[in-house]
Amino acid sequence: MRFLLADNAGCGYRSVLRNPLGELMTGLSWGLVGGGEGSQIGFTHRAGAELDRKFRLAAGAFDIQPTRSRAFGAGLGLNPKRVYGDWREMLAAETRRQDRLDLVTVATPNASHFEIASAFLNAGFHVLCEKPLTTTRETARQLSEIAAASGRICAVNFGYTGYPMVRQMRGMVQRGELGDLRLIKSEFAAGFLADTEIDKNPRVGWRFDPEKAGVSFVMADMGSHALHMATFVTGRNVSRICADFANGVAGRRLEDDAWVAFRLQGGIIGRLWVSGVALGRTHGLTFQLFGSKGGLSWKQEHPEQLQWTPLGEATRILERGSPHLHAEAQRANRITEGHPEGMVLAFANIYRDLAEAIASDQLEHSTDSANWAFPDVEEGRHMVDAVCAAAESSAEGCRWLRLS
Amino acid sequence: MRFLLADNAGCGYRSVLRNPLGELMTGLSWGLVGGGEGSQIGFTHRAGAELDRKFRLAAGAFDIQPTRSRAFGAGLGLNPKRVYGDWREMLAAETRRQDRLDLVTVATPNASHFEIASAFLNAGFHVLCEKPLTTTRETARQLSEIAAASGRICAVNFGYTGYPMVRQMRGMVQRGELGDLRLIKSEFAAGFLADTEIDKNPRVGWRFDPEKAGVSFVMADMGSHALHMATFVTGRNVSRICADFANGVAGRRLEDDAWVAFRLQGGIIGRLWVSGVALGRTHGLTFQLFGSKGGLSWKQEHPEQLQWTPLGEATRILERGSPHLHAEAQRANRITEGHPEGMVLAFANIYRDLAEAIASDQLEHSTDSANWAFPDVEEGRHMVDAVCAAAESSAEGCRWLRLS
Amino acid sequence: MRFLLADNAGCGYRSVLRNPLGELMTGLSWGLVGGGEGSQIGFTHRAGAELDRKFRLAAGAFDIQPTRSRAFGAGLGLNPKRVYGDWREMLAAETRRQDRLDLVTVATPNASHFEIASAFLNAGFHVLCEKPLTTTRETARQLSEIAAASGRICAVNFGYTGYPMVRQMRGMVQRGELGDLRLIKSEFAAGFLADTEIDKNPRVGWRFDPEKAGVSFVMADMGSHALHMATFVTGRNVSRICADFANGVAGRRLEDDAWVAFRLQGGIIGRLWVSGVALGRTHGLTFQLFGSKGGLSWKQEHPEQLQWTPLGEATRILERGSPHLHAEAQRANRITEGHPEGMVLAFANIYRDLAEAIASDQLEHSTDSANWAFPDVEEGRHMVDAVCAAAESSAEGCRWLRLS
Amino acid sequence: MRFLLADNAGCGYRSVLRNPLGELMTGLSWGLVGGGEGSQIGFTHRAGAELDRKFRLAAGAFDIQPTRSRAFGAGLGLNPKRVYGDWREMLAAETRRQDRLDLVTVATPNASHFEIASAFLNAGFHVLCEKPLTTTRETARQLSEIAAASGRICAVNFGYTGYPMVRQMRGMVQRGELGDLRLIKSEFAAGFLADTEIDKNPRVGWRFDPEKAGVSFVMADMGSHALHMATFVTGRNVSRICADFANGVAGRRLEDDAWVAFRLQGGIIGRLWVSGVALGRTHGLTFQLFGSKGGLSWKQEHPEQLQWTPLGEATRILERGSPHLHAEAQRANRITEGHPEGMVLAFANIYRDLAEAIASDQLEHSTDSANWAFPDVEEGRHMVDAVCAAAESSAEGCRWLRLS
Repeated sequence: MRFLLADNAGCGYRSVLRNPLGELMTGLSWGLVGGGEGSQIGFTHRAGAELDRKFRLAAGAFDIQPTRSRAFGAGLGLNPKRVYGDWREMLAAETRRQDRLDLVTVATPNASHFEIASAFLNAGFHVLCEKPLTTTRETARQLSEIAAASGRICAVNFGYTGYPMVRQMRGMVQRGELGDLRLIKSEFAAGFLADTEIDKNPRVGWRFDPEKAGVSFVMADMGSHALHMATFVTGRNVSRICADFANGVAGRRLEDDAWVAFRLQGGIIGRLWVSGVALGRTHGLTFQLFGSKGGLSWKQEHPEQLQWTPLGEATRILERGSPHLHAEAQRANRITEGHPEGMVLAFANIYRDLAEAIASDQLEHSTDSANWAFPDVEEGRHMVDAVCAAAESSAEGCRWLRLS
Repeated sequence: MRFLLADNAGCGYRSVLRNPLGELMTGLSWGLVGGGEGSQIGFTHRAGAELDRKFRLAAGAFDIQPTRSRAFGAGLGLNPKRVYGDWREMLAAETRRQDRLDLVTVATPNASHFEIASAFLNAGFHVLCEKPLTTTRETARQLSEIAAASGRICAVNFGYTGYPMVRQMRGMVQRGELGDLRLIKSEFAAGFLADTEIDKNPRVGWRFDPEKAGVSFVMADMGSHALHMATFVTGRNVSRICADFANGVAGRRLEDDAWVAFRLQGGIIGRLWVSGVALGRTHGLTFQLFGSKGGLSWKQEHPEQLQWTPLGEATRILERGSPHLHAEAQRANRITEGHPEGMVLAFANIYRDLAEAIASDQLEHSTDSANWAFPDVEEGRHMVDAVCAAAESSAEGCRWLRLS
Repeated sequence: MRFLLADNAGCGYRSVLRNPLGELMTGLSWGLVGGGEGSQIGFTHRAGAELDRKFRLAAGAFDIQPTRSRAFGAGLGLNPKRVYGDWREMLAAETRRQDRLDLVTVATPNASHFEIASAFLNAGFHVLCEKPLTTTRETARQLSEIAAASGRICAVNFGYTGYPMVRQMRGMVQRGELGDLRLIKSEFAAGFLADTEIDKNPRVGWRFDPEKAGVSFVMADMGSHALHMATFVTGRNVSRICADFANGVAGRRLEDDAWVAFRLQGGIIGRLWVSGVALGRTHGLTFQLFGSKGGLSWKQEHPEQLQWTPLGEATRILERGSPHLHAEAQRANRITEGHPEGMVLAFANIYRDLAEAIASDQLEHSTDSANWAFPDVEEGRHMVDAVCAAAESSAEGCRWLRLS
Repeated sequence: MRFLLADNAGCGYRSVLRNPLGELMTGLSWGLVGGGEGSQIGFTHRAGAELDRKFRLAAGAFDIQPTRSRAFGAGLGLNPKRVYGDWREMLAAETRRQDRLDLVTVATPNASHFEIASAFLNAGFHVLCEKPLTTTRETARQLSEIAAASGRICAVNFGYTGYPMVRQMRGMVQRGELGDLRLIKSEFAAGFLADTEIDKNPRVGWRFDPEKAGVSFVMADMGSHALHMATFVTGRNVSRICADFANGVAGRRLEDDAWVAFRLQGGIIGRLWVSGVALGRTHGLTFQLFGSKGGLSWKQEHPEQLQWTPLGEATRILERGSPHLHAEAQRANRITEGHPEGMVLAFANIYRDLAEAIASDQLEHSTDSANWAFPDVEEGRHMVDAVCAAAESSAEGCRWLRLS
């Protein structure tokens, strides 16, 4: 299930939010689980969600420690009654409210996603869950079923899909501008695990513990973004996968580097490199796509430019905001080209799409391919499956494995 | 007068706003004049001002047409009573309110800045005025006097000063890391005026009309940013200036290209190029600073990186968010390095500094040089003087002129 | 066997060539097999070999067609008696001459390397053979034995090793500046096979024919460069390899894309991507190396810059020609930094090293690690083995294979 | 007088040299004055001149010290009889020889160019003189007259004009692809004079001495290249100029930084920045040209790429060697795109053009605009005039001066 938006009446940040009766809506009510003091992703969610005034943070359980959660919520100026000591308290109280939350974002450690997201869905809330959806295939399957049964949105925050130029790439593929798709090269390789001191950092160390993190570290945390982008841009799922997990730093219990070959449906060749020990690379997400009629190249660190090389012609530098881009990219565009928009505005694009989907109550498939969407629970589940298959493949000496 | 913040207790986006009694404050009340439907700068102000929940948009006169202003305010979910048909109505009503606005941003056409900003200051509001402060030396002088008499903040939105790496440059200069400053090279050259069709666009065409725009187009609109950055980073004013205004497109009544030589106090050599006909350049603001001990290079289109070359050593790429930066840059930093922050977050830095200054009620000079500030009315006035002098110099065949 | 030069008396292009008696030598005599009309590699060899006046082209069999060979040699101003119709004629005649050639370069199609190089070595000539050394493991083994028995140099032209900054990387590794080596990422991916028309080009089409080209196209032709660089910079051989060969263009009989995982001796992780269908990439050779103390990144298209990130510090841009580089890089440096040297000068570095080795008659190992060398027959053979193993691994579903 | 080549029969490095009778010629005889031990420009001339085997170094006076000159010539393997102790000896001896030199390159200190070049021209030799042609307007005028009277070529080595992509820019202008030319932005700014220690270096220090260097340092040495490129690419001379010479390092007797406004014939706006104290810039020559239909941007440090932005379209990255370039660029192209050619091959292009001009004996204007040429004595003289006018303008407070 992938939610597509039926109404593109508004364009850019000026789009007006209306409910199914056509009434103007402002300020959907939004809650956040996790993302408190010191959380970068929490800041990015808050800044992105509220940017368009379509959501307003109304409630939260921000920290595993109740007192810290309450202090954090107070600092944000929230109604103290809606700042909770933990997510269960929040679920119980918000379920009873008349002005209940329209959307709950789950930004807690990975192993808790399943339980929290399931509970809010079952209680009838729309949910945006941080990636990875869950840490096991079985919980991912269950969560997908729970979401389907609930009739609520269960989106997964592959946040880089909010960038206008990522949507431009998808738009070019959909219009056939690349011809037959041949090859994907995706990377997410950085150096934040190069210093072995980081293993002692409590925010990072547990990620190398299979009991807490599951079967994978960098493939799950970083690789799933880079692999999801391949599926998002092409609209095709992974059919086969083969991986070599390795440790640049000996002794770590889960991989800090992965080399992955895959195929998308239709035989598109996929190459993926993921690393945490690539010292000197700052963020390191890049995406290249090659077809019979042209090639694309994009880098997250400079997300406003997209290189496009039509077969037999010179490479073009497509700029976010320039008038030649497709409607999907224009819709996600906010300020004049040359003024960097950045990551918060990418998140804001996802939240805006969610707001419009919620407001329109149009939670089923749409045929309007010119509109854009947020990654959904099925995409989140597919990535969990792919990560698990990659770990198995590596353990079996790079054996090719099929994904169902 | 330059407002420096006395309290750096908070760091990054987590900084907590307290009033002079030490009480936690959230949600200063903010109003916007101009910046309505279709205004990119309006969006950037709204998104930046509210990003940290330190300001909350409470009132506005968004458009010169009252009905459009009201529709726009409604779309933002504002209280209809505080959406006004024009700025005079807003001034009158807000002056009477108990919960009056804490800050008013003026984002109207340049020629109206003086009247609007003066009126709000005289009524006791803090003001953030878009640049250029005014269009004549005389009105700039008057506004500076009005601001001084009011005891209120009159800040000027040289928004690029909100970028962490611009603040890093200033921090490096203040700590003497560049040694004796020798030379500045600043550019703001783009191609948006290359297509002569744009002269017919009502949003642009008036800017070539001396009656409406004053003595300069690109030097005033773009060059003042690039020249201000020279003064902001070095802490020195312009002492002499010499300019060649020219027209890449013949027949325009004001310049679309300018070549400016200047000196800062202390004899620092300045070079400035401004252009609107530099086809192929997207935004085009760059800044380079050379001293006896090192050189710096920064580009607005990739604002997260700063190149630093110590004398006799290899060039370093300093990344926003990396742990080695100075406190000023760290304070303005919000998300992990490698995830672009962009222009909205630069504006947010300026608004956060304003919020803290207003909350602390510490509106006079501070000796705490480790903290950062927003450009103030004196800086706005100095830029008006410099632009006028450049225009005169060009008219007199590139004669050198002194600034008082 | 790796030839290292004992005498670094000269530095840069000014180095003086002396024979073992210490007599000044100029103008070793050089012959070329292949590389005639229309051959880019022929031009690069000629320009590089003669650049330092250490070699002078004296003889050649430039084309498989005798008349074309003679016309080409005449155009170069050679003595017509030493322009031959084919390499056998050249071998016979040159063997008899008093002023016989000091070095013969073999730049013919891959399948003929073995026969030609063997014949010249057996006749006592020093040989520089284009890569790949041969097309089968067995011929590579035999050629290595023939070279050893001959007592002559049999170098292999992995030409990118002539770049100063590649030698700088090797120098940094040798001095331990990267700490423990962890990970290599090497790419050689371009788009020259994206247009299917090229399959009809007689210069390219045969490369997809297993009878003529052997077991591999892009891995052998491009991948061997990128993999050799890993061994050259680290001084370690490949111990294990695993590969996925694929076809971006269906129906080709040999791979046009390859994804290779490997390990170097000592467990260094290796990742290699090779492609001919990566449309938009011009040349596409890049090399990254990550250790416990720092990371390096280099791109052949901009070979003068090397990015170096020490652990915990900002990335440095090392420039060819700057005074801080190691002796190996300085030795290979010719003109002031900032003036690109390019590929011909990289070849010239290899020829200069060959000239000094020949002149010194010091053809055995040297302990002088501060000097640089040309890739030798063992390195050529190792690459043939690795390419063959990669092809086998891919055919067996990405099975890991050991190299002896 | 600008020499254009009548016969473009050959293409690329394969072009065959024929004399006016159509006979194949190889190895024109070439002599070098200056450029001995330690001279980078000498190496570049030697490598470039001989690269195509059209010139062969036959004689030289390489150093002001006779013994060093002879040692250097011996190291190059020259006939000792043709290695001279000084240029007068060389002139006398070579004039008497039957096999006299076809071309003499003058690469001595600037102040000696006039005397040496004049003497060789008067004796009937073709001359390639390093820039600047001379150090005074009067000697430049005289040399131009001497050249005209001699009927010999007097070329001036503005070496960057040998780059294929510079010739591509000229080709695009000539074909009208940029529409009406509006604006030039040229820079040559680097940091080699940032360290004040360099003033004590005998190779550099004299350049700050007006008695030895004339009226200018960086404008003459670097700025003349950047300004010449403006005239070369557009085919227009400078009509007016205005300059601010300054010293980043106080106390130097000639400028180390210059800011120059100018106009080309037809009113094209020119902006030029020259600096030696721009620490962190390695070489620093860049060239941008803007017209009504498009804009171009080129950087010497990455000379293979040219950015081209047609009005209203995305920027293209034109690559040297790609099939879409104009004949002038193709003619100057030697190896496959993506393999950097560099500076030596740019010089080689100029020497090849000289060889063909000399061989064809067609020393007058040609109407064949599709062919390319070397900068001639008139261009050298025009640059001397422009540099002198810039120095005068600066001394008079940036007064605009006309060039005749």
